[in-house]
Amino acid sequence: MTQPPAPGDREPASPSWELLLPASSAPARARGRALQSALRDAVRSGRLASGTRLPSSRDLARDLGVSRGLVTEAYEQLTAEGYLRAGRGSGTWVGEAARAAAPGASDLAPRPPTGVRADFVAGSPDLSLFPRAAWSAAQRAVLADLPHHTLGYPDPRGLPRLRTALAELLTRRRGVVADPERIIVCSGVTQAVTLLGIVLRARGQHDIGVESPGSPQYEDLFATVGSRAVRLPMDGEGLVMEALRESGVRTAVTTPSHHFPSGIAYSARRRTQLLSWARRVGGLIVEDDYDGDFRYDRAPVGALQGLDPEHVAYTGSVSKSLAPGLRLGWLIVPDALTDDVVARKRYMDLGNPALDQAVLARFVERGDYDRQLRRCQRAYRERRDALVTALHEHLPGTEVSGIAAGLHAIATLPARHGPHQELIDRCASAGVSVRPLGHYGGAAGDGVSLVIGYAHLSPARITEGVRLLAHAALRARFP
Amino acid sequence: MTQPPAPGDREPASPSWELLLPASSAPARARGRALQSALRDAVRSGRLASGTRLPSSRDLARDLGVSRGLVTEAYEQLTAEGYLRAGRGSGTWVGEAARAAAPGASDLAPRPPTGVRADFVAGSPDLSLFPRAAWSAAQRAVLADLPHHTLGYPDPRGLPRLRTALAELLTRRRGVVADPERIIVCSGVTQAVTLLGIVLRARGQHDIGVESPGSPQYEDLFATVGSRAVRLPMDGEGLVMEALRESGVRTAVTTPSHHFPSGIAYSARRRTQLLSWARRVGGLIVEDDYDGDFRYDRAPVGALQGLDPEHVAYTGSVSKSLAPGLRLGWLIVPDALTDDVVARKRYMDLGNPALDQAVLARFVERGDYDRQLRRCQRAYRERRDALVTALHEHLPGTEVSGIAAGLHAIATLPARHGPHQELIDRCASAGVSVRPLGHYGGAAGDGVSLVIGYAHLSPARITEGVRLLAHAALRARFP
Repeated sequence: MTQPPAPGDREPASPSWELLLPASSAPARARGRALQSALRDAVRSGRLASGTRLPSSRDLARDLGVSRGLVTEAYEQLTAEGYLRAGRGSGTWVGEAARAAAPGASDLAPRPPTGVRADFVAGSPDLSLFPRAAWSAAQRAVLADLPHHTLGYPDPRGLPRLRTALAELLTRRRGVVADPERIIVCSGVTQAVTLLGIVLRARGQHDIGVESPGSPQYEDLFATVGSRAVRLPMDGEGLVMEALRESGVRTAVTTPSHHFPSGIAYSARRRTQLLSWARRVGGLIVEDDYDGDFRYDRAPVGALQGLDPEHVAYTGSVSKSLAPGLRLGWLIVPDALTDDVVARKRYMDLGNPALDQAVLARFVERGDYDRQLRRCQRAYRERRDALVTALHEHLPGTEVSGIAAGLHAIATLPARHGPHQELIDRCASAGVSVRPLGHYGGAAGDGVSLVIGYAHLSPARITEGVRLLAHAALRARFP
Repeated sequence: MTQPPAPGDREPASPSWELLLPASSAPARARGRALQSALRDAVRSGRLASGTRLPSSRDLARDLGVSRGLVTEAYEQLTAEGYLRAGRGSGTWVGEAARAAAPGASDLAPRPPTGVRADFVAGSPDLSLFPRAAWSAAQRAVLADLPHHTLGYPDPRGLPRLRTALAELLTRRRGVVADPERIIVCSGVTQAVTLLGIVLRARGQHDIGVESPGSPQYEDLFATVGSRAVRLPMDGEGLVMEALRESGVRTAVTTPSHHFPSGIAYSARRRTQLLSWARRVGGLIVEDDYDGDFRYDRAPVGALQGLDPEHVAYTGSVSKSLAPGLRLGWLIVPDALTDDVVARKRYMDLGNPALDQAVLARFVERGDYDRQLRRCQRAYRERRDALVTALHEHLPGTEVSGIAAGLHAIATLPARHGPHQELIDRCASAGVSVRPLGHYGGAAGDGVSLVIGYAHLSPARITEGVRLLAHAALRARFP
């Protein structure tokens, strides 16, 4: 790997850049990923110091012998993630956000489904995509050669084999800084946040910031552990920094890769601001990466945790990629919190069940998990497209947002279709179950904003559901 | 790596041993593993010839610059695996079992179960009795016809099908009053007690009574939820009522069917007194029925809960009957507590994983679970008999108690074998791992009381273990 440029050395001689990407016959996509990963590592480790100017994409592409598009894409991706920043001119620079740190790890999951004519309530993946045959085969294989001791009382942090597999997976897919020793296997995002809530409460943190709009579970969750959820407003870039600062909280639970429910990704600027805030107040950002794997039109934004693992706790789960019923997820916390979180996990349940952990480890090791993610990604992209097409056809004038990623979108109908409650009621009697943005604490704007979960529905059912929804909406005007 | 010592050279000069373990800053656990692996390789390759005497653990620890415990553990582990053997004196020798083999054979090295020559530490069932084939078949069957929605977010109380199956099972086998609507599936007794601790703490109960001697986990467990374990003395019939009354606690965690660790069953009179107390103070008895299914000479004592389900919370698990690694258990609480406990369970983990629940339901429904219990019961009775026979033969004068049920017994050796710590240390160096009753808070009596877990060992290993134990005990008198 390349030597660190001396501080102030803003334009290293181009040859050193070649070392970022060893010559290879790998396909372009793999090389692009390798370049991004090498850049991320170089920034994180300090080999590329903050303020360093990167070569132009044309120069670097020539030096590396790759297409210019591949470099541009890498720059854009890492700028979105906060590792780089675009200068006022045409240059690209190493940003201030990343901080070198010891390896660490994480994941999250939310809510339940129901059954109506068209159920657009967000939160569930398509349970019929669960790979039953492959899972069953993996179960059999695992039971055939599991050492006996794995059936004994577990390590509360989780099966070492699974933690190793997850560290590789999360580093590769999400840019997380993940050391198997710091990953805690848990039952999902709810348990992860509960664990953190208990540990922080014991350290005197009674107030925890959460996004508004956002997951409605946090008031009850934090009340259960004896603390309080403080709702903080969002703007188009993420949590509003001024409100965060004034709130006095030192911990905030966030969904930076794909905000729930608005669907925005936090801007690079806001990501940097959040990290600066956390460092200044000695605080913690909890990164709920509940659906970070599902992004349709570009590569996923890397996890915020990768920029500063000592100020970000990362959590996620298999609830969206496999099934919520598995209750299997992960949490990676800053060093300073690890022991306390493990102790709480121990008295909560002694650790997660062993067999599912071993099966998931095998699934990840053998590439079955990546295959499953690709399969879901294809299916969900197709469903998103069906939703957008149907909305444009049946409800012209509707603005659809938050569609770049995830399992749901926001549809804002023209104001004439409101007010909200009336529309929701009409939908309900037409057999269409859907929630307004306001349900999640969103401000009521001019239009009628609906949160539409689509991932669990077939394209045909989505189209039919939108037809029914449109019918209900139009009845408002011609009752 | 060190040169093979010349044949007959039974005490190689210490410097050569240093090469077993290169200096390293790796954590102790990793160094311990490295040492074990190096020793194994050296024996296997013939570099350490059969009959070679190893340095004392103290000497080797000094030479390697590691803790003595690390070396002792490595010796114990390799003795258990057959690479080394404990000599008649205090020495450790290379055994005859290992045969030099081509590299790669290390993959076939016997995988240690727990790690000593005879491990009498109580708490684990025999993990090799886990019915892998039947469990695997049940998993396959369950995955083949599970409704999709079962893979979604679960009912925090547990799968209805499992709660129904458990209600039938616990009513029939344990005389529990069990309505499926009041059963809460949980991860085991630790989670059950933690849930109750949180709920009771929120209702102002800061002190919870626990048995002394008893499970040593309760101090930490209750501290974790913000309350306090109050140790209450036992007599031959159960908790001492006067101490219970005077303590002021309103909740007590008990093991009335088979007290841990003494092995007594609470007397009928004491059971009645406990219930009267609970009614008078509006209190709660938590009944930990951790091994109520294993009773050898008569029918099991029915659960206390059956006598007064509004003053007894009943909890148990499959940790002794199937495997602790499944993390699957149950809790039945009085009506007045049910909603609160379910709410806490919800924020703790949203509910237990679905697949294992469905498999266990099927197991219970089809009689596989009863078959497994009978199988364990037969195996454990045979082991208990082997233990009692061996103790009488090798340590005449030893009193054995608590043998009517369960997975462990109390062996009280004549006082001449004491004091405890010396005996325990001698046992440890003979490769016998065992705990004194005092470890669990038991009062030191005249004799030397040991808690001997036998269920996880084969009869042959039990007999051999007792022989080693007797040898260590006799060394006290004729050192």
